[in-house]
Amino acid sequence: MMIVMKETATEEEVEAVAAKIERVGARAHRISGARVTVIGAIGDVEHDVSVQSLGLEGQPGVDRVMPILKPYKLASLEMAHGERTVLDLDGRKVGGDHFALIAGPCTVESREQTLATARAVRDAGATLLRGGAYKPRTSPYAFQGLGQEGLKLLAEAKEETGLPIVTELMDMRDMEAVLEVADVVQIGARNMQNYPLLAEIGRSGRPALLKRGLSSTLEELLMAAEYILKEGNPNVMLCERGIRTFETAYRFTLDLMAVPVLKELSHLPVIVDPSHAAGRRELVGPLSLAAAAVGADGIIVETHPNPDEAICDGPQALRTEDFAEYARTVEQAAALAGKALAGRDLALA
Amino acid sequence: MMIVMKETATEEEVEAVAAKIERVGARAHRISGARVTVIGAIGDVEHDVSVQSLGLEGQPGVDRVMPILKPYKLASLEMAHGERTVLDLDGRKVGGDHFALIAGPCTVESREQTLATARAVRDAGATLLRGGAYKPRTSPYAFQGLGQEGLKLLAEAKEETGLPIVTELMDMRDMEAVLEVADVVQIGARNMQNYPLLAEIGRSGRPALLKRGLSSTLEELLMAAEYILKEGNPNVMLCERGIRTFETAYRFTLDLMAVPVLKELSHLPVIVDPSHAAGRRELVGPLSLAAAAVGADGIIVETHPNPDEAICDGPQALRTEDFAEYARTVEQAAALAGKALAGRDLALA
Amino acid sequence: MMIVMKETATEEEVEAVAAKIERVGARAHRISGARVTVIGAIGDVEHDVSVQSLGLEGQPGVDRVMPILKPYKLASLEMAHGERTVLDLDGRKVGGDHFALIAGPCTVESREQTLATARAVRDAGATLLRGGAYKPRTSPYAFQGLGQEGLKLLAEAKEETGLPIVTELMDMRDMEAVLEVADVVQIGARNMQNYPLLAEIGRSGRPALLKRGLSSTLEELLMAAEYILKEGNPNVMLCERGIRTFETAYRFTLDLMAVPVLKELSHLPVIVDPSHAAGRRELVGPLSLAAAAVGADGIIVETHPNPDEAICDGPQALRTEDFAEYARTVEQAAALAGKALAGRDLALA
Amino acid sequence: MMIVMKETATEEEVEAVAAKIERVGARAHRISGARVTVIGAIGDVEHDVSVQSLGLEGQPGVDRVMPILKPYKLASLEMAHGERTVLDLDGRKVGGDHFALIAGPCTVESREQTLATARAVRDAGATLLRGGAYKPRTSPYAFQGLGQEGLKLLAEAKEETGLPIVTELMDMRDMEAVLEVADVVQIGARNMQNYPLLAEIGRSGRPALLKRGLSSTLEELLMAAEYILKEGNPNVMLCERGIRTFETAYRFTLDLMAVPVLKELSHLPVIVDPSHAAGRRELVGPLSLAAAAVGADGIIVETHPNPDEAICDGPQALRTEDFAEYARTVEQAAALAGKALAGRDLALA
Repeated sequence: MMIVMKETATEEEVEAVAAKIERVGARAHRISGARVTVIGAIGDVEHDVSVQSLGLEGQPGVDRVMPILKPYKLASLEMAHGERTVLDLDGRKVGGDHFALIAGPCTVESREQTLATARAVRDAGATLLRGGAYKPRTSPYAFQGLGQEGLKLLAEAKEETGLPIVTELMDMRDMEAVLEVADVVQIGARNMQNYPLLAEIGRSGRPALLKRGLSSTLEELLMAAEYILKEGNPNVMLCERGIRTFETAYRFTLDLMAVPVLKELSHLPVIVDPSHAAGRRELVGPLSLAAAAVGADGIIVETHPNPDEAICDGPQALRTEDFAEYARTVEQAAALAGKALAGRDLALA
Repeated sequence: MMIVMKETATEEEVEAVAAKIERVGARAHRISGARVTVIGAIGDVEHDVSVQSLGLEGQPGVDRVMPILKPYKLASLEMAHGERTVLDLDGRKVGGDHFALIAGPCTVESREQTLATARAVRDAGATLLRGGAYKPRTSPYAFQGLGQEGLKLLAEAKEETGLPIVTELMDMRDMEAVLEVADVVQIGARNMQNYPLLAEIGRSGRPALLKRGLSSTLEELLMAAEYILKEGNPNVMLCERGIRTFETAYRFTLDLMAVPVLKELSHLPVIVDPSHAAGRRELVGPLSLAAAAVGADGIIVETHPNPDEAICDGPQALRTEDFAEYARTVEQAAALAGKALAGRDLALA
Repeated sequence: MMIVMKETATEEEVEAVAAKIERVGARAHRISGARVTVIGAIGDVEHDVSVQSLGLEGQPGVDRVMPILKPYKLASLEMAHGERTVLDLDGRKVGGDHFALIAGPCTVESREQTLATARAVRDAGATLLRGGAYKPRTSPYAFQGLGQEGLKLLAEAKEETGLPIVTELMDMRDMEAVLEVADVVQIGARNMQNYPLLAEIGRSGRPALLKRGLSSTLEELLMAAEYILKEGNPNVMLCERGIRTFETAYRFTLDLMAVPVLKELSHLPVIVDPSHAAGRRELVGPLSLAAAAVGADGIIVETHPNPDEAICDGPQALRTEDFAEYARTVEQAAALAGKALAGRDLALA
Repeated sequence: MMIVMKETATEEEVEAVAAKIERVGARAHRISGARVTVIGAIGDVEHDVSVQSLGLEGQPGVDRVMPILKPYKLASLEMAHGERTVLDLDGRKVGGDHFALIAGPCTVESREQTLATARAVRDAGATLLRGGAYKPRTSPYAFQGLGQEGLKLLAEAKEETGLPIVTELMDMRDMEAVLEVADVVQIGARNMQNYPLLAEIGRSGRPALLKRGLSSTLEELLMAAEYILKEGNPNVMLCERGIRTFETAYRFTLDLMAVPVLKELSHLPVIVDPSHAAGRRELVGPLSLAAAAVGADGIIVETHPNPDEAICDGPQALRTEDFAEYARTVEQAAALAGKALAGRDLALA
């Protein structure tokens, strides 16, 4: 933590700040420049938290407080000594040089739709099956998902295809039911900072797919992951799904820079969801290629046997009949970034 | 709902869209312009939801789908026939021409701090006492609030000062404990789209103070309110607390335009939180005057007897010793917008 | 400038950075923390510019480079030793405790419209008359202003009412013509970083009203002002006119926090334009009160004798018949912030 | 244009709006829904401009005005009947299935640096040479480019390597000098809405590379292009270079969704500048692959023989020694999107 004093700060003010820093166990190191004095608070992350809690921004003579150490620990690449986390889901790998293709319907609608989709994506080499049973909807009047009925259909799809399941949990009261089916529990963007939910998933030990909030910084995303990791659950995938900007030509702005930067900061795998940002099928293909080429560890994408009849988000769903061709080109793009489709061998076996 | 066809759309594509619209009970009204055809889907909000679920954005020949009706109903000013909601909290009014001054510590830290603050704000004419027992913190390593112990201190403060209590609920499992103390349940910005939580508060019937998410549109805020209203709970206050923008000179950008615009759209009272956006005491005064002058129905502000020793957000807390003077100038600004401080008479009585 | 090294930086990398810093005349001060080393580059703003040009962000072992000194000098409050700039425009003051009401039509349309508006705002106590002769329009097909003909009408309005004129300059080739009429030259938001134009206005010595770009930070605004000040022209007013955010309920988001923060950073007067952010007359009143209450040094607002017939931006123009009442309430709000309407006495004299 | 009336609009208000629309030559088509009336203003783009100038947003009873037709004409894909513009620069193609690799130093610094870079990028198969002689800098104290001396060095580099030149024009007074050297005139992001400059370049007929403003919508970018096209100059390339968002982990947020969406809207080629968004060499590689994979018509990238000694933006410059390898992988990514490197044959010939 660096405390930048104002040009007009007095010697007493500088000393008062230094004294406060030392009171919480950090060391105060003073640097006097031509115009301003800067005080470095030397210590570890714990000291940083303590120094932060001093609220020095409000002290007389203080201009700014600038953090030096990153506020997350378990999520950081340094803590992992540069070694990347590779998740193992029923033998399917995510992370490292394994590229995960996670596909399925936005919402589980019916037995036929779910099984048809599951078979199609399995045949095309998908790594995991995604599907929503509980849907967070902006409108209370919109379809909210099939709930437990949907979970049962996902279980059946897994039984038949062998694909591990990714499905969203919104309400802690559905946790038990979701854990019965989900190989990976998805935390949606709106719940990225639902800390009690994060901690519970941390305690469950179940792998989590954590979506970045609509306007969350990468640091906040890593701090949200830290809530899960701190409970002893190391199995977290981060997911970029589009951020909110001033642009109105698309639903969200897919932030592909997040991928290489998150991988510089953290050892956790980084997945991209092109469907929700795009909102339209035509954009999903190009964005998927870009996501794979930029170095993502996987893509989570929506597909439907008959998107025109989909209950929810049909326009952004790839047609299952086009999915195998789509998977093939994404695989080529991933190869440019040094990754091979995870589960490919299993699918062909 | 208006469906704008592409310039290149064929007659068959236009007809296919019209047929889909009529299948869900809306009427398709066709307007052929010089270059494009527009199809109006005529019906009520229910039809809008149905037409929306058709996913026409993805249909061949469709360029854009533009909603006409507002997606919220119970929150809208029209539904209330222009009559504004006035909450009554133990005889203290919020809304209409009553201006609410909601003040107290960021976090309940101790008996002395809580009671000293409560007395000071009561004496200065505050309408309600705010104070956090459960704190949503970006870092899992930061102080998370006193929990039930904090709730007890708030109950004691209420007992002594008679001030109704506003406190935050983050975790549904704390609901019962919070409802024992809270006259108003606060939903924080990070939980604005925690739909299960919103619905539960709706069912509880307890007045709610709903904070706008960091990057939520006004429409999304009103849809979140709709989740509460739909359960039969009409007692909702909206709260602007700063949005996320590109500007790095302050923590958040307080969006005061939200106040008059929300009041055009909705009958619900609109409160402003200047403390969290500012992050610094120096800015809280000017922003409070601006919030009152722009027509807010109240302000929720942090104050502390000794901010330099505060556990959390000290730099943004007003000193309780300055609070009476602050309240007096805010009152003058509210008067410019035609509002009088609620609870003033009670305080002086 | 602080250079934060990576945790993994080697001793050689730290030394290489220190050596580079010292090569440009700054002093390298090293602070070794528990986990990272930070190097302070000690010197003046000139050294900062030199150190910045070293591109240390790209050096092996460097994690981040954090500036300490503010990059503007002449615009800073410190450089003015805390003394605020007060402009004197034909005896009308702007800045300090003088509140400027700058009013007039968006666009000069006709002799009658211009003179009628000028008289109305003069009678209501306006400080300056605004009016556009050259209009920057998003569409090349839209009306681009009356040009020189418009300048003549402004000159006539000044002659009759005695009000100094504010008008926009977009094209350097119109400079001479604009300088013949303008007491204050307006630089629009789109030209805030048109550096050759800024430098020319600096050289002209004519007072400038510099609008903040749609997504310019306060620092960038002050750096743009610095381009003018550097040429020896101290007469600059800054103007907040709404920034671009994700919110679609209004045209721009008026950022009133910019006012107190700019006044902490700089000695220059800060004006607010509520008309362009709002886009609608109904919002102009509340936003003007808020701007005055938050401590702005003035407001620049659009007014028209018959807004329904205005060529440009009619919906946001106040009706001249309502202007006197509007001015009176804004004056009251300014008084809350300790300011009196400039030119009031002149108008009444 | 669709005019949505308020629920409370009276019959007279509806008629008044319809009458205004018909007065400017458009046809008013009325649609009465269950709750609101919508009036379609039927006509061509000219009518749209006229109806827009009516300022109906401010009329009594009007809720919203929604444009239907796109405000640009010459830039639109429809106007080109779906045929894409392919620029021909001394035999080098940009657009269609030709991928342009535009490379060179940020700033022209010296004869050696310029020629060494030009040779390296020519040998690696670059299509065009970029290099700045006039540099728009946020700080008036920073190096502003070599000016005419820089232009001469670019001319020499062209003479030697045969590579056409892209260089920026900021100040209309430098137009003649720039046109003597530039095969493509670059308009920087800060000047995207410098309309007099755009019109002049339009009149010059010289190909233009138009960078998207930091917070410009795609529609505004296309309207800026329209200013050039309207003057009879059809040779415009659009360039995405990063937008401003809340994220502070990188300098700008590269918006790769802009690429496929611009190509849906317009026939103009779309180029991506990964260097300025990234600010760091490490990110330039992954972002370039992503840009090529998403379907861009080219990349404009910075490279330097010795970035550590670069005067400007060294950290984001690729090392020329790595450039050939970089070009090879970008070429593979472009192939996934169906494009071949333009100028490859020329370079090898």
